[in-house]
Amino acid sequence: MSGRALAAIISAGLSKFGKLEGLSSREIFLSAAKEAFDRCPNLNPKKDIKSLFIGQMSESSEHQGHTGALIADWLGLNPIPSVRLESACASSGAALRAGVQAIMSGLVETVMVGGVEKMTHLSTFDATEYLALSSDNFLEQWHGFTFPALFALIARAHMLKYKTREEQLAAVAVKNHKNGSKNPKAHIQKEITIEQALNSRIIASPLRLFDCSLISDGASCLILTKPEVAKRYTDEPVYIVGTGQASDTIGLYERDDLTSLNSIAMAAREAYRMADVGPDDLDVAEVHDCFTIAEIISYEMLGLCGKGEGGTFIESGQTEMDGKIPVNTSGGLKSKGHPVGATGTAQAYEIYLQLTGQAGKRQVEGAEIGLTQNLGGHGSTSIVHIFKRNI
Amino acid sequence: MSGRALAAIISAGLSKFGKLEGLSSREIFLSAAKEAFDRCPNLNPKKDIKSLFIGQMSESSEHQGHTGALIADWLGLNPIPSVRLESACASSGAALRAGVQAIMSGLVETVMVGGVEKMTHLSTFDATEYLALSSDNFLEQWHGFTFPALFALIARAHMLKYKTREEQLAAVAVKNHKNGSKNPKAHIQKEITIEQALNSRIIASPLRLFDCSLISDGASCLILTKPEVAKRYTDEPVYIVGTGQASDTIGLYERDDLTSLNSIAMAAREAYRMADVGPDDLDVAEVHDCFTIAEIISYEMLGLCGKGEGGTFIESGQTEMDGKIPVNTSGGLKSKGHPVGATGTAQAYEIYLQLTGQAGKRQVEGAEIGLTQNLGGHGSTSIVHIFKRNI
Repeated sequence: MSGRALAAIISAGLSKFGKLEGLSSREIFLSAAKEAFDRCPNLNPKKDIKSLFIGQMSESSEHQGHTGALIADWLGLNPIPSVRLESACASSGAALRAGVQAIMSGLVETVMVGGVEKMTHLSTFDATEYLALSSDNFLEQWHGFTFPALFALIARAHMLKYKTREEQLAAVAVKNHKNGSKNPKAHIQKEITIEQALNSRIIASPLRLFDCSLISDGASCLILTKPEVAKRYTDEPVYIVGTGQASDTIGLYERDDLTSLNSIAMAAREAYRMADVGPDDLDVAEVHDCFTIAEIISYEMLGLCGKGEGGTFIESGQTEMDGKIPVNTSGGLKSKGHPVGATGTAQAYEIYLQLTGQAGKRQVEGAEIGLTQNLGGHGSTSIVHIFKRNI
Repeated sequence: MSGRALAAIISAGLSKFGKLEGLSSREIFLSAAKEAFDRCPNLNPKKDIKSLFIGQMSESSEHQGHTGALIADWLGLNPIPSVRLESACASSGAALRAGVQAIMSGLVETVMVGGVEKMTHLSTFDATEYLALSSDNFLEQWHGFTFPALFALIARAHMLKYKTREEQLAAVAVKNHKNGSKNPKAHIQKEITIEQALNSRIIASPLRLFDCSLISDGASCLILTKPEVAKRYTDEPVYIVGTGQASDTIGLYERDDLTSLNSIAMAAREAYRMADVGPDDLDVAEVHDCFTIAEIISYEMLGLCGKGEGGTFIESGQTEMDGKIPVNTSGGLKSKGHPVGATGTAQAYEIYLQLTGQAGKRQVEGAEIGLTQNLGGHGSTSIVHIFKRNI
């Protein structure tokens, strides 16, 4: 394999995920940034960082937009350029990709990318409404569709077509909570049983409470630089060797087949091609388990298993910590939490820890190649990145 | 002069600006895109365009986010990557810069950049509140500061320090309305007199109604490609030779001097350096006249005149259509209108028309070099681009 490095991660930071009472987005982002700065003493943030790319889904939760300039100011990094990117729950995946493009452009050498979201001060009703911004206003939101309802349609179609069972959905939740119980930054660090999952209350049939990811506060960031200079900053950079992004229809009703999320497959194809890597080469992956069915479909779309086989794939144990390809070692959106704008770079943070041997009790031994898959809405946006420890 | 071309504009489109009753952002954007496609018959949008970058300030006006994926879908361009950028009123300036970076990265050859905003269905109160999202929630919004109030502080400080007069502010409005009266796409195509401006009602002293730009609906876009292949698409590309962006504090209260908008000067310095161009070389410029005082300060920050001389500079007539450096030939935000997310690429659209001799009754004869200056908030973000007809 010979995937060229597009950029290198020289540091990364993650706030605690959870209900961060009394803290606003700007303060939450600072705690992620502080970790990234502390982790890389060779970096002089004020001198070295030349651009900021910040993912955030919506300004409405805190009545605060212009998050790029806001974060630059609160980090003491102005006057450097800073911009917010929004691709629904893939907002910081988009920020990561923008940072990679900026470095590849030659305009800048070192940038910070990240994301943040403040959600837990909202009622569940308001948070659901807020998230619905990412679906089609005219033909989904107005008709009362929320994301749990939209993913319930997807889950039901998958169950009908491929005989996927509720137990298989629940197995995703059980695995991710097991992983999350080992992640000190996870929102809910607690194992659950398959019975608990199967007996939890219905949210949108067939999806139950434990099929849904968490409403969390949190922030994440990465420091990226040109691959050629990465070792100036750290002995253990992680290289980004593939980036892929694809769009699908804004409305679910426009799609021929509810059981596929084609944008994942298209983004992955591009990233695999660029990285000269295939699904069998992966040692670890973080995928977008906003609902358990999304993780099952992402297995299929990423080529970890065949179409329709996601349900049996989770049951086979191959995505467990000791399986062939551990998935969502962080706990995923389900257990680590899902502060939407922070999720894309939080996935990359986990892969960075894994590939540099810093993942503690959830370390995948000898992990060399990792993947992140970040979804916006019901797959209207998909962003996939591939990472390598050595090039 | 030898500024290297970073990217080339091969086509551009602009919707009518104004109160576009019954049309939503997606439909407004289509009319801008249609013009860009029609103008460039050699372009096969579905085949050639590889990425979309869409500026939009806020999703709250239409309860619709995920604008990148939405626009890709409505243009029939999915599955290409598409993302929304937000930097307040500089959102599509940021989209333009992202498009330039994407092309320079080598990942894509041809992209569409643009912006859109739907505002006129909101009450003036709601629109003012919506715009306030871009200031500091904690120490501006909560205390009742709106942008008219914030720019009023800036204007008052400028008047006190530099003896700038209300007549000079009004002269900006008179000039821009005169130019806008010749722009068939302008929101208000009507000349005004200095007396009308000076007698219009106070909005936030010293700013009067005619010192404020318009609340408009509108969209704008550009098709960019690698400079080397531009002539495949058109005999008359316009080259982007400089891009600069800078951030200032999110709150006005953090600044030492209210009379400067330093981020403009910093963004301009970077763009001038890259383009190997100075203010004296410019033939035409579009600057961010969200309030008349902003145009006066931008003259100073761009180096068109000395610090504190913006008031006498507008009175000297040098920025009129027949002056040394015509500014806001389109009518500017004041007369053409200010659908905030659309403004950055609408400024570039005007420069594209000017440099290709397509500006009709407001053509600056023989214009070869142009500049756009796009402001986010009260200068928390500034983005400057420089354009050349020939390289």
